[in-house]
Amino acid sequence: MLSNAGCPKTMLSIQDALEAVEGRWKLLILFALSEKPKRFKQLSREVNGITDKTLSKELKSLEANELIRREVYDTFPPTVEYSITTHGLSLEKVLDELHFWGLAHRHKIMGK
Amino acid sequence: MLSNAGCPKTMLSIQDALEAVEGRWKLLILFALSEKPKRFKQLSREVNGITDKTLSKELKSLEANELIRREVYDTFPPTVEYSITTHGLSLEKVLDELHFWGLAHRHKIMGK
Repeated sequence: MLSNAGCPKTMLSIQDALEAVEGRWKLLILFALSEKPKRFKQLSREVNGITDKTLSKELKSLEANELIRREVYDTFPPTVEYSITTHGLSLEKVLDELHFWGLAHRHKIMGK
Repeated sequence: MLSNAGCPKTMLSIQDALEAVEGRWKLLILFALSEKPKRFKQLSREVNGITDKTLSKELKSLEANELIRREVYDTFPPTVEYSITTHGLSLEKVLDELHFWGLAHRHKIMGK
């Protein structure tokens, strides 16, 4: 049985978290940025299967939730880099647990 | 820095996990079922904001991923109950970490 199983307040917190990292892309983008700050094209290559349009939308949403930072450097032409914030890094344990569970799930369901 | 930051294999596991629990509803349904087996109408009331159509679709997907079980009891009229499987319960730590993070996130972003 999960801790606080079924408790409405706990459900609200989980709902808040899921809204901030909704969909299949945001956590993967954060994971890619957890290594080091990256440019758009680099992220687009590393996050398997994401389109540029979706990546652009997801980056804006992550920025609004203060999970990443967009920095423009005064070079010619200007360079734009995305980096993870302290708040974004605080998702570490969620990512770790998803990683472990993803391994077990692949083993169980996909038999690989 | 996250453990295994940016590692492609870790990213694949996270992607597997996110595909199994994709969207804003599946983890909430699992959390509601972690308390005890429930009927459709009960889930529909407890998972705030979900429509019956979406709930029905999500339950089928959770069943396909062996995260929940659908049981039909031979009553008149027949009773259908959904319960969480051992595999579903193994998401406990993911749910716990999302809960803690959701609390911190609400505090930070929503200032509540």
